[in-house]
Amino acid sequence: MNKGDEEKRTMMKKLIPNKQIVLNHYVTGYPKESDFGLRSSTTSCTLSHGSTSSAVLLKNLYLSCDPYMRHRMSDHISHSGTIVQSFTSGSVLVGYGVSKVIESTHPSFKEGILGMPGIAAYAGFHKICYPKEGDCVYVSSASGGVGQLVGQFAKLMGCYVVGSASTKEKVDLLKHKMGFDEAFNYKEEYDLGSALRRYFPQGIDIYFDNVGGHMLDEVILHMKVHGRIALCGMISQYNIEKPEGVHNMFSLIMKRIEMKGFAETDFRHVYPELVELCIKYLQEGKLVYVEDIAQGLENASSALVGIFYGRNVGKQVVCIAKE
Amino acid sequence: MNKGDEEKRTMMKKLIPNKQIVLNHYVTGYPKESDFGLRSSTTSCTLSHGSTSSAVLLKNLYLSCDPYMRHRMSDHISHSGTIVQSFTSGSVLVGYGVSKVIESTHPSFKEGILGMPGIAAYAGFHKICYPKEGDCVYVSSASGGVGQLVGQFAKLMGCYVVGSASTKEKVDLLKHKMGFDEAFNYKEEYDLGSALRRYFPQGIDIYFDNVGGHMLDEVILHMKVHGRIALCGMISQYNIEKPEGVHNMFSLIMKRIEMKGFAETDFRHVYPELVELCIKYLQEGKLVYVEDIAQGLENASSALVGIFYGRNVGKQVVCIAKE
Repeated sequence: MNKGDEEKRTMMKKLIPNKQIVLNHYVTGYPKESDFGLRSSTTSCTLSHGSTSSAVLLKNLYLSCDPYMRHRMSDHISHSGTIVQSFTSGSVLVGYGVSKVIESTHPSFKEGILGMPGIAAYAGFHKICYPKEGDCVYVSSASGGVGQLVGQFAKLMGCYVVGSASTKEKVDLLKHKMGFDEAFNYKEEYDLGSALRRYFPQGIDIYFDNVGGHMLDEVILHMKVHGRIALCGMISQYNIEKPEGVHNMFSLIMKRIEMKGFAETDFRHVYPELVELCIKYLQEGKLVYVEDIAQGLENASSALVGIFYGRNVGKQVVCIAKE
Repeated sequence: MNKGDEEKRTMMKKLIPNKQIVLNHYVTGYPKESDFGLRSSTTSCTLSHGSTSSAVLLKNLYLSCDPYMRHRMSDHISHSGTIVQSFTSGSVLVGYGVSKVIESTHPSFKEGILGMPGIAAYAGFHKICYPKEGDCVYVSSASGGVGQLVGQFAKLMGCYVVGSASTKEKVDLLKHKMGFDEAFNYKEEYDLGSALRRYFPQGIDIYFDNVGGHMLDEVILHMKVHGRIALCGMISQYNIEKPEGVHNMFSLIMKRIEMKGFAETDFRHVYPELVELCIKYLQEGKLVYVEDIAQGLENASSALVGIFYGRNVGKQVVCIAKE
């Protein structure tokens, strides 16, 4: 680096108040608010203009509460290369969100509310499920952040789409706001198999799985030949000690089914096409979204715990600041 | 059809002795010889030369005993479009084999000992697993008809290949005759996970599954990120009332694993390239095969029952006639 560059540098040091939600200890079973703590701290920040390295100072506006975070709250034997590592006890709960840039020495940056659930829904449906017009699509946990987008992407492709959720309110939203062809409350179905036969008398081409466990096991029996199953999440399994067994694996052979686990981390490259598509659809009124917004970081733990009981209606976020 | 065509016809009627193995009743648990009967009958055959329809009269030389046949011996709720339907009680056990053409009015026909296991191994490995040089490949039931070919195809691709089998004799065959890098007797492993860690310290890229159940469940934990699992058969599950549960499904998401059931019936179109390749490899001495040949139809039931106890060493066939 030459002297001129060095002279261009402007050092800015700031001491900034920073409230944080921390994990008190590893979680067993369903998470409780007492598993988390609210910590007031300060963070120091140095932005060096003219340096070869660059930095961005962000103010968080919204935080995202997502089911996958539960997995990081358990003490796992680490599998190298897996998508998420466990938090450590006492560490900040890291997640997605929407931020405002306060200062930046970085020439380009992106912010995005379509971040994680958007990529997971878009890539999971379009890149994993090979959808085509007329396909029969089933989405579980359909009113959640990912599910509601998957269903709408599927409708925009000309698919027949059925979603399941845990309350009448959510079912109504799916049918009357998000444009699903059908929706049902799985908690009111004595026999899940009967429900699936009712909505899919010819079988299911695509299952977008957000719940895993018994639901996945049953759905396999209702798949069509050459069906595709995208494994996005398994929220029914995160809070139990031993995951439920999936017994109907032989049907995967009988019906030549493709089942694929995926993670949005592998699809960051589709972000530009996703943003372009979603902005277009939003402007045309063809895409809607339902958010459940908790106010203030002091309500973040409660909001996060709530998603594992299905208390959220739509995508759960926490509003920290409006601007 | 004009009169000239009709005059060209030559009608040939034949009454031919035809011994058959029939299913006495649906099978529960492991099949027993008493589940099957040997029936002597005759079959009539009319070959009409010059007809628009054509026919072939075959003499069976070898019959193939394959694990998938077990599935047809149970009374299933029929799933439309699945690859195999149940036999009916009293019906002939239909299967694959090698036949000699006695008479034919058909302009072209094919016979082939590379039939089912050949296509399953070739298509399952090359079209489902996306293998590349250096991949770490695990094959269960590796000395069987499909497994022994998969392992050799993988070695020819430059993969590291480990197989498991049920006896020392089979393990020796895998290592010393079929060229597997390593092989182990799973019955002698107290902890399957330890065995897999020993042979795959860096994890498994490709698992070619012939057994299903607990083996599949454990292998999932040892897969690498972006691993591929080809579900070819689940011989460990065919004789039990309720299939074992696979509990480690969440790892499919964590490691973005693709798991795909397949059937040779979807890959008949690769038959020409398979035959060409195998003839070349056989002539060059790069492909070997081990068969377990039972003599005579009266020993067919015993041979068929034997494969579910792992009594066969190599691909089980029944020799009906040498020519």
